[in-house]
Amino acid sequence: MNIGLKKVCEALLAHDRFLIITHQSPDGDTLGSGFGLYYGLKQLGKRARVVCSDEFPARYNFLFQDYQDDSFDPEFIVAVDLADKQLFGSQYASLADRVDICIDHHPSNTRYARGVLLKPKAAATCEIIYEVLKGMGVTFDERIGTCIYTGIATDTGCFRFSNTTVNSHRIAAHMMRYNVKIGKINRLMFETKTQSRIAIEQQVLNSIEYYFDNRCAMISVTGDMLKSTGATECELEGLSTLPRQIEGVQIGVMLREKENGDFKVSIRSNDGFDASKICGLLGGGGHVKAAGCVVKGGLENAKKVLIETIAQFV
Amino acid sequence: MNIGLKKVCEALLAHDRFLIITHQSPDGDTLGSGFGLYYGLKQLGKRARVVCSDEFPARYNFLFQDYQDDSFDPEFIVAVDLADKQLFGSQYASLADRVDICIDHHPSNTRYARGVLLKPKAAATCEIIYEVLKGMGVTFDERIGTCIYTGIATDTGCFRFSNTTVNSHRIAAHMMRYNVKIGKINRLMFETKTQSRIAIEQQVLNSIEYYFDNRCAMISVTGDMLKSTGATECELEGLSTLPRQIEGVQIGVMLREKENGDFKVSIRSNDGFDASKICGLLGGGGHVKAAGCVVKGGLENAKKVLIETIAQFV
Repeated sequence: MNIGLKKVCEALLAHDRFLIITHQSPDGDTLGSGFGLYYGLKQLGKRARVVCSDEFPARYNFLFQDYQDDSFDPEFIVAVDLADKQLFGSQYASLADRVDICIDHHPSNTRYARGVLLKPKAAATCEIIYEVLKGMGVTFDERIGTCIYTGIATDTGCFRFSNTTVNSHRIAAHMMRYNVKIGKINRLMFETKTQSRIAIEQQVLNSIEYYFDNRCAMISVTGDMLKSTGATECELEGLSTLPRQIEGVQIGVMLREKENGDFKVSIRSNDGFDASKICGLLGGGGHVKAAGCVVKGGLENAKKVLIETIAQFV
Repeated sequence: MNIGLKKVCEALLAHDRFLIITHQSPDGDTLGSGFGLYYGLKQLGKRARVVCSDEFPARYNFLFQDYQDDSFDPEFIVAVDLADKQLFGSQYASLADRVDICIDHHPSNTRYARGVLLKPKAAATCEIIYEVLKGMGVTFDERIGTCIYTGIATDTGCFRFSNTTVNSHRIAAHMMRYNVKIGKINRLMFETKTQSRIAIEQQVLNSIEYYFDNRCAMISVTGDMLKSTGATECELEGLSTLPRQIEGVQIGVMLREKENGDFKVSIRSNDGFDASKICGLLGGGGHVKAAGCVVKGGLENAKKVLIETIAQFV
C-alpha cells in the first residue's frame, strides 16, 4: 500500500525499536539512507539497528564511524532504497515479508512492504529520508548531513547525471550548512581508484580499436585481463560507456569475455544510431542508446561479427 | 577600487553599449559569465558584444549559438573572470587599462580595473553574474540559466571540489527551473574526450610505476608521447592528480618533459606528506599537498633523483 510522508513520520514517531534494512551490495544511497535514518531516530531517543546482507564496505566508513550495533528485539522494520525482495540478500531474505515501511525511489519497486513511500522522481532515496527526518522534527547535524549528502552525490554522479533535480541541489545546499566535508567525501567517492582498476583501465585503453572513420570505437575485456590485473566485476563499472565518450564516436562497443569464452557485447550509441537494432540482429536487444547481446566464439570472431553487423548501419 | 553589487547594477543600467571581455584560453566560467551578462543586457534593450583574444572553443557552442556579433562603438567595458591584465591576450591587451568594471572571483585579482566587484569566496564568477542579473531585474530564462549553470559546474568539477558552496547549489537549483539541459551539458563538459586524450591517457597509464610498497606512484609524459599521440598541453589537464587517486598512494608524482629535455615534476600528496618539502630539496616549492620542481637530465635520471629524495621522507 502506498502511504504518504505524514503517515510515515507518524508511524516512526509511534514506535521505539527499529530494524533498518539496506540492500545487498550496498551503495552510498542505501547506506546514507539507513544511517541517516538511524542517527535521526537515535536523536529522538529511540533504539535502532542498521543491517545488510553484505558487510558494510570500508570506503563508506565515514558514514557509520559513530554507529554502535545494539542488540534488541525490533518492533518495526524499515527497508531503505530496497526495490525488490531479491535485494535483501540471503541473510535477511526471511524478513522481506515482514517489512512495515519501505522508503524508496526506484520506479521498479515491487511494493512488497506493508507501507511504501515511493518517490520515483527523487534522484536518491536520501532525498526522501531528508523529508522524513524533517517531518519528524529531527535537528540536522554533521553526521546526518554527511549521510544525506553522500546518498544524493553518489546516486547522481555528483550532480552530473540527468536524474539530478532542483531538489537534489536544494537538499545538498541545506546539508552543507552543517559542516559536511564535501571535498573529502567526493574525493573518496569519485576519485579514489584501486590499483587493479588502474591496471584494467590501462589494458582496456590498450585494447581500443577504431572503425568506420573513427565513428565506431571498440574495447575488450578478456578473462586473461581480469586475471592478470586482479580486477573484479565491479571494478569494470562505467567502462562500457568509455568508447562513446570519445569525440566523434557514434557507436561505442565493449566486448566482455564470459566464463565459457563467449563475449557479452554492450553497445552505447550517439546521434540517433539505434543500438537496439544492431544488437537485435545478433539476438539481443535493449534501448536506442544502450543495448546488448552475446556473440559466440573467440575475441577475433566476435569483433568480426560485430563489424559486419555495424557496417549495415553506418 | 572595490565596488559593491548595487553600484555595479546601477552603472550597467545607466549605460547602453557594452564590450564584455573574457579571458584568453577561455573556459566555461568566463564564457558563461560573458554570455550570461550579454543575454541579460540584451533583454534590457542594450547593445553588447562578447570578445576574447582566442577563438570561442567549439565545445562551448551551446552557450553562444544565439549570439549575434554586433559592430558599434562601446561606451562601457566589462571584464569577466579576468584576474590579471596578462590574461587579456594579445588582441585585447590594449584595453586592459580601460576596463570600467571587472567582475571576478579570483583572490589573486590585481585590481587593474576602475571598479572591481570581487567575491573570492564564490566558486565561480557566474555566481556573481547571477547576482548582478538579479540586481538589474533581468528575467531568467533557459539561455541565461544555461550560461550560469555551466560556469558553476565547470569551475567546481560539477559540484565535486571543495570550493563548492551552499550558494553554488542554490543558484544551480534556481537555474534548473528554466529547463537547463544539465545531463547534456555535463556529458559535454565532463565526459567527452578527444582521441588524442584517450591515447595520451593510455600511454600515461602504461608509464605508471610504484615505489615504497605502493605508497608512491609515478607517471611520466615525454615529448615523444605528446608527438605520437598528437595530444596538446591542455589535454594533459588533471593527469597530475592521477597517481594520488590510487588507493594507498601517499605521494603521487608526475614527470613531464620540457622542450630542453629537463623534467617538470608535480608532486601531489596525501596523509600529511609534505610535497613542498620534497620539492624544496630539489630547488622547487609549493604547498603541503601540491608542489613542483624541475629536475635536469633524462627521464631515468629524473626518476632516480626523485626516488632518492622521496626515500628521505617515507
